[in-house]
Amino acid sequence: MRKVAIVGIGITKFGELWEMSYRSLAAEAGLKAVEDAGLSGDEIDALYGGTMTPGLFTDGQEHGGPLLADAAGLTGIPSTRIEAACASGGAALRQAYISVGSGINDIVVAGGVEKMTDVLTPSATFALMGAGDQKWEGFYGVTFPALYAMMARRHMYEYGTTEEQMALVAVKNHANGSKNSNTQYPFKVTLDQVMNSTPIADPIKLLDCSPITDGAAAVILASEDKAKELTDTPIYIESSGMATDTLALHDRKSLSRTDAAIKAGKDAYKLAGITHNDVDLAEVHDCFTIAEILAIEALGFCNIGEGGKFTEEGETEMGGKIPVNTSGGLKAKGHPVGATGIAQAVEITEQLRGEAKARQVDGAEIALTHNVGGSGATCVVHIFKRRN
Amino acid sequence: MRKVAIVGIGITKFGELWEMSYRSLAAEAGLKAVEDAGLSGDEIDALYGGTMTPGLFTDGQEHGGPLLADAAGLTGIPSTRIEAACASGGAALRQAYISVGSGINDIVVAGGVEKMTDVLTPSATFALMGAGDQKWEGFYGVTFPALYAMMARRHMYEYGTTEEQMALVAVKNHANGSKNSNTQYPFKVTLDQVMNSTPIADPIKLLDCSPITDGAAAVILASEDKAKELTDTPIYIESSGMATDTLALHDRKSLSRTDAAIKAGKDAYKLAGITHNDVDLAEVHDCFTIAEILAIEALGFCNIGEGGKFTEEGETEMGGKIPVNTSGGLKAKGHPVGATGIAQAVEITEQLRGEAKARQVDGAEIALTHNVGGSGATCVVHIFKRRN
Repeated sequence: MRKVAIVGIGITKFGELWEMSYRSLAAEAGLKAVEDAGLSGDEIDALYGGTMTPGLFTDGQEHGGPLLADAAGLTGIPSTRIEAACASGGAALRQAYISVGSGINDIVVAGGVEKMTDVLTPSATFALMGAGDQKWEGFYGVTFPALYAMMARRHMYEYGTTEEQMALVAVKNHANGSKNSNTQYPFKVTLDQVMNSTPIADPIKLLDCSPITDGAAAVILASEDKAKELTDTPIYIESSGMATDTLALHDRKSLSRTDAAIKAGKDAYKLAGITHNDVDLAEVHDCFTIAEILAIEALGFCNIGEGGKFTEEGETEMGGKIPVNTSGGLKAKGHPVGATGIAQAVEITEQLRGEAKARQVDGAEIALTHNVGGSGATCVVHIFKRRN
Repeated sequence: MRKVAIVGIGITKFGELWEMSYRSLAAEAGLKAVEDAGLSGDEIDALYGGTMTPGLFTDGQEHGGPLLADAAGLTGIPSTRIEAACASGGAALRQAYISVGSGINDIVVAGGVEKMTDVLTPSATFALMGAGDQKWEGFYGVTFPALYAMMARRHMYEYGTTEEQMALVAVKNHANGSKNSNTQYPFKVTLDQVMNSTPIADPIKLLDCSPITDGAAAVILASEDKAKELTDTPIYIESSGMATDTLALHDRKSLSRTDAAIKAGKDAYKLAGITHNDVDLAEVHDCFTIAEILAIEALGFCNIGEGGKFTEEGETEMGGKIPVNTSGGLKAKGHPVGATGIAQAVEITEQLRGEAKARQVDGAEIALTHNVGGSGATCVVHIFKRRN
């Protein structure tokens, strides 16, 4: 595989954007990325678009490839929709990376978009259950907060993790998100506010959950040669790891461990020739606060079972051992499911370029994204470097 | 890119398969392909699954990657759902091809599946409209037969194409399909039967339409080295071409020409270093009879506007200049949308291996597949060779 770098990024505001359609969100993020890369549209070879379920969220619309190309003014190019539930963005980034790496394309857009606030089907909760096992979980009434609640409860039972430790993930991510202008909920929350927020699925409370969000993000990938022509600050994608697990939570080996993330992380570290100790910051998939604890354990930043304590000790805060979710994470920034994996790459690119302003991790050289689909059935990990 | 070959194929019966679920269809095709390749599951590096809309067709189920891996006993590997409406299978084949070509994977399953006869949403017609533009076409009541009827009517107006010429596509494809044991409708039809069948969307009649189908197909791709270890008859994928057009038919430059297919075909010929004259047989996307006429024109087998006449003269029959849809095509074999592009590759592999029995095109060396999404917004063309 050839070396591949990010040469352009674009992101919309995340939030309840009643005035923005699915298409206008995609177009805005795509055009911002093309502009950031200093490209004209006819230099783009292909598009990969991550989107979970416009079929259920919006108006029965599938066929995202030509839809997104068309919306972004790129009609004609090979354009492919990738769906991996909440990891659709990360999976689209991976396919874009492989396609440039293979030599078949030189310059490719990887985008992600979701419009979740206009819902055709009974509810967004039903649509989101499409990320889990509808037949053996959803049919019996399980929802995503309930799945993560079971994982949280088991983690508490096995390792003594506390509700306060989980709540501290929300406190940290809202503190980070308060410094990010794209954030859906750019305010700080206190430990008391999280602990006293409405119960959703015990032990998960409202402020343990990421929100329902509209938004889009895009990055432009280029081969090393093209990247050097286009920018002085290419951000290299060093490696991509991806793994799956059973779709249904009850079929897994463990409820308190995310094996697909462990495997995807190991593969990504190995391919990049680094260890977790080399990573300066990470954007991880905190769809619920327990998910961030599971993520930092799976990625090796702390031992399995110690994620709660690691969080409580401040090691994942700005200035800690490994700053996690400097963007605000899914928790504060919002979680337009198909866009999330790409939005993570946007944050990492800003950080490694040294353009993250109040959120900047000083001297960041190597960073990681961790994007999860469903309750952990898909995980995609990418490792990025500032220097080649 | 490294060279890539097909080393295993599997396909289910196509039809109204009330006793088979989405998962059992996928599992059957996948296991047959793995068995055909003489592999064990742990030798498989990744899976790409083409499926259009289980979210709308079945039970709100998305997240096809881990679902399909799980169903096929391949839990753990990177497994990604690709959606390109009725070209989902072809698009999945393309991503599998690129991933093996890139060197990131050595052995990959490309599968396709659709279960269309159990429908959650108002109708299969609504779900299928997800392949078109729901906002600017579907909302106003247009259905897929209507879109193709407009293309047919325009082709008749511009080029003098007749309803009889379109009907002859059905006659030929049913004649071919009557020799294929997987076919949904394995019977011959006469010109009179097609011409006198129920009008659906004038000038399209019932027997001009492909059916609603359940089914799955899978192929195993391997790098050249691995392929030579695994089989004496690897079938090489020489090239892949893909292009898009506007999602909505009314935005296109022409209603009587499929520009995405023209571009995808040209790219595929160029990358393979051949012309249309070198192709010995083709499986093309005959979702309606007019679609086959548009396809053979777009691929250069005859001039634009002459597809009706070319068909009438028997040039696309077995023994004609270029046998088209020896499998029976979507028309007779059935059209489980996500599976179709892979089923085309299964037919081509049988033909180039010399294993197509009563349907065998003697001495076939080079063949082509043409898989369309929607009314032509996506087209994926692959070229296959028996010898390297």
